[in-house]
Amino acid sequence: MSDVIEPVSTSFPVSARNRVKRVHERGSYDKAAVFAILDAALLCHVSYVIDGQPFCTPTLFWREGEVLYWHGSSASRMLKHLKAGTPACLTVSHLDGLVLARSGFHHSANYRSAMCFGTARFIEDADEKLAALKGVVDRFYPGRTQTLRAIDPQEFKATMVITMTIEDASAKVRAKTVADDEADYATPLWAGVIPVAQMIGAGEPCPRLIPGVERPDHLSAYREGRRLDETFVEMQRAYEQGGE
Amino acid sequence: MSDVIEPVSTSFPVSARNRVKRVHERGSYDKAAVFAILDAALLCHVSYVIDGQPFCTPTLFWREGEVLYWHGSSASRMLKHLKAGTPACLTVSHLDGLVLARSGFHHSANYRSAMCFGTARFIEDADEKLAALKGVVDRFYPGRTQTLRAIDPQEFKATMVITMTIEDASAKVRAKTVADDEADYATPLWAGVIPVAQMIGAGEPCPRLIPGVERPDHLSAYREGRRLDETFVEMQRAYEQGGE
Repeated sequence: MSDVIEPVSTSFPVSARNRVKRVHERGSYDKAAVFAILDAALLCHVSYVIDGQPFCTPTLFWREGEVLYWHGSSASRMLKHLKAGTPACLTVSHLDGLVLARSGFHHSANYRSAMCFGTARFIEDADEKLAALKGVVDRFYPGRTQTLRAIDPQEFKATMVITMTIEDASAKVRAKTVADDEADYATPLWAGVIPVAQMIGAGEPCPRLIPGVERPDHLSAYREGRRLDETFVEMQRAYEQGGE
Repeated sequence: MSDVIEPVSTSFPVSARNRVKRVHERGSYDKAAVFAILDAALLCHVSYVIDGQPFCTPTLFWREGEVLYWHGSSASRMLKHLKAGTPACLTVSHLDGLVLARSGFHHSANYRSAMCFGTARFIEDADEKLAALKGVVDRFYPGRTQTLRAIDPQEFKATMVITMTIEDASAKVRAKTVADDEADYATPLWAGVIPVAQMIGAGEPCPRLIPGVERPDHLSAYREGRRLDETFVEMQRAYEQGGE
């Protein structure tokens, strides 16, 4: 063990790549701000380039520290090209509200988004890959893999896991009411915010469920009528603490 | 007027770019399928490339026929690079449910996603740009621009509109219960779908609203407790029919 304590930055470095250009007062490079947006989601969009053509692929992802993971079939177009390690941009966005202003120009949306840059690569090491395959289940449903059978060799082969350490990132948030031009506030028009949120519905058990099997405790956070983003953040905390 | 009626394809052409590679039975090139996914959303992610670096940018978008539009400040990094016309990929995704299986491998999500490819370019023509700036408001709130003051020259200059004709596209949908391996159905584990949906909340009027101003009819579709995706589809239909 070394006595040297490495300084840990609470912010990502700022470069031409992640500098927030538009409406920059909404931007942040704070790691906690970026992680909070990532942890509230299951779905991200990953951008990558093949022969100059950009692709924007939706996929499930998860985070461990400053490392992001996503996975897919070994037949996927994206995965083949990511094998060698390739620049990628992983973005998560939450739509939080529709903003109706007194002028067309100030119509907007409330949102939280995080863009993460790095080099995406396949996980080749079998132990690292197995840990990641368990991670994707346990991150959303802490402790669930303990209740499942082991991954069989065919499944292990058919699933590829991609990892990307976040080199730099930025968060952008709009979370406020209408911002109209001063002169327009006198206009007798309805203006305001219509909030929107991803909500959890009533669970739909598999029609072939063994009679008498109850929903396990590791799903209790997914209550009907609850916000999905808050639930995902809670599950990330539980996962980081080593399962329930 | 010509007597020649051009054949109209109901599907987008299939190329190496948009061919659905992974779990291909979920894929479709049908225009109506792609449009249904696009019309249910306000938020998209656009991928583009600057010096080999992919960017994945969340933005508001809207559709007129086979043409997509999005806009932003003229200071934005993306917009500067799109001025000359550049390959882009615009993707819309809806998360519809969490799928919990009896094995880690078959855990999944229900979703609807559409990837659209084309060449993005600035709108330079003033009339075309003005129509598009009205379009973004009226597409989500049909008839609203008639109630707003005109766009002033500064606002017109500050906002850039990008347009992309869809050259090819694909839709991918998973909308079903758990699909486990036959042997695993005998396992006494809870499996099923936890549905999720973007829901509309109670409107939050601007604190500076002129007393007595009511919410207008063109916002009546945004009812508290309603699904946002269904509302957006209804608004697109109303917009296509020329306002409310």
